[in-house]
Amino acid sequence: MFEQVSIIGCGLIGSSVFRALKKNGSVKRVITFDSDKSVSEIIKKENLSDKITSSPEEAVSNADLVLISTPLSSFESAVDSIKRHLKSGSILTDTSSVKKGADLIIKKFNLKNISWIPSHPVAGTEKSGPTAGLSDLFKDRWTILTPDSKVKESDVKKVALFWESMGSKIKIMSAGDHDKILSLTSHLPHVIAYNIVKTAMDNDEKTNKDVIRYSAGGLRDFTRIAASNPIMWKDIFIDNSDLIIDGINRFSKSLDEFKKAITEKDSKKLLEIFEKSKEFRDAIIKAGQDTDKPGFGRK
Amino acid sequence: MFEQVSIIGCGLIGSSVFRALKKNGSVKRVITFDSDKSVSEIIKKENLSDKITSSPEEAVSNADLVLISTPLSSFESAVDSIKRHLKSGSILTDTSSVKKGADLIIKKFNLKNISWIPSHPVAGTEKSGPTAGLSDLFKDRWTILTPDSKVKESDVKKVALFWESMGSKIKIMSAGDHDKILSLTSHLPHVIAYNIVKTAMDNDEKTNKDVIRYSAGGLRDFTRIAASNPIMWKDIFIDNSDLIIDGINRFSKSLDEFKKAITEKDSKKLLEIFEKSKEFRDAIIKAGQDTDKPGFGRK
Repeated sequence: MFEQVSIIGCGLIGSSVFRALKKNGSVKRVITFDSDKSVSEIIKKENLSDKITSSPEEAVSNADLVLISTPLSSFESAVDSIKRHLKSGSILTDTSSVKKGADLIIKKFNLKNISWIPSHPVAGTEKSGPTAGLSDLFKDRWTILTPDSKVKESDVKKVALFWESMGSKIKIMSAGDHDKILSLTSHLPHVIAYNIVKTAMDNDEKTNKDVIRYSAGGLRDFTRIAASNPIMWKDIFIDNSDLIIDGINRFSKSLDEFKKAITEKDSKKLLEIFEKSKEFRDAIIKAGQDTDKPGFGRK
Repeated sequence: MFEQVSIIGCGLIGSSVFRALKKNGSVKRVITFDSDKSVSEIIKKENLSDKITSSPEEAVSNADLVLISTPLSSFESAVDSIKRHLKSGSILTDTSSVKKGADLIIKKFNLKNISWIPSHPVAGTEKSGPTAGLSDLFKDRWTILTPDSKVKESDVKKVALFWESMGSKIKIMSAGDHDKILSLTSHLPHVIAYNIVKTAMDNDEKTNKDVIRYSAGGLRDFTRIAASNPIMWKDIFIDNSDLIIDGINRFSKSLDEFKKAITEKDSKKLLEIFEKSKEFRDAIIKAGQDTDKPGFGRK
């Protein structure tokens, strides 16, 4: 597939890519570069690279594929540091959660003879950093590619094969469609998770202690995704703010209807909402996107 | 502890109590009664009772402890059917999620020589029915008791020991405090989970298909608790409506502040919210109320 792949930014996602590539053996050499020295030290200690470098030139000048896996707020400086050293004819991709934002930055640099093929593997956990990576993180998950129509078809295929080699399924769509769908399936749920935790903990100390103690009644599920990488989520909320605000407004409108049904003790309306939610859950499990184990396999 | 315990209503919770009691051997005989014939058939088939009966008299007349584990909307008729047959001096408890609601119903019946000691095991999964029961469902979970101050101390101790024998930890508080805390840790999270699923699926068919496909980005966590027993949740929303509406109002106010921070691209404020959420998650894990495995042990 590729002789050499370079990973710029080695957190949860970057280090998972390394682990997956090494497991399947599809890439000969994987070089990693992270501007954070403490991350590079962990990478070294945990043996998460074929070669760690602190030189952007060495990182990318022989790479057939360069994958940038930094938070979006570091994306521009990452591209800036490598732009002069990219091999002519090579492919540049990323893993960021907002595709229009990444696109705008790349367009600014006006790179020549580089195939820019944005990727978003819809996978992750609430953990961050290189030690949190998992070799099977992308298995049975979707990776969305949002290439420009002018990009070489054969290069898009190569990037698709790259993710497929790690067990991922591929979908190609526009950056705009991506940002719209992800605002519903990922960004809005994170806003809401953060907000319910914020609401539940906004009490005196004694009540907060009780809230923690009895969180197994539902709240604890929300706290998981509200423990995700703060920098990454700050970037996402800022970069996809228009669509996220749209989502919040729709959520609030829906919540007002729900509140009305509760106030009016409207059993029929409530049961209707619940039945539909259950059907939706069933569809997600049927689509292989979640486990059917009670309590996700915990209690 | 008790010679005979009778379980009225054998769904997820009732059947878990049976399994737990049989596992630890602390009760000699467990009789079950469920007004739903199809449930009784499953109980029989799965061997989830020492004796299944369809007679309310036989169910409770020799029981030292009667545990009612029906949805709250069936609680009154359940009490009505057994009230004349309860053994003098016996203990009556329940498992319902709204303690003031259960209390009001019991007070109406004015039972004589019966110790009414309400219980709420804060445990469960999104599954329902007798086949969903688990013998270790209550292990390391809290059970809240909300007895009246006039009830015999020794009887409260017996009920505490009963839940402790199944691995539960005990907390005693007033029904009002219970309903307040649970409105935050359980009822409000369920409203919000239902509402985000409702919002995310309120699209044309094509978009809904995409929403299901990419739900691993966060949404799927919410769909789990939104798949819980519809009847039970309809009852809870109606019976604890005042406190739940209070919670919704607080949630909405907090969401408005959050929306403002996103609109104004206020990085500092956003990071502040995220850090606090993470601390809260850490406290829940430290309190043993959730697992620290990434993605709850799934991906």
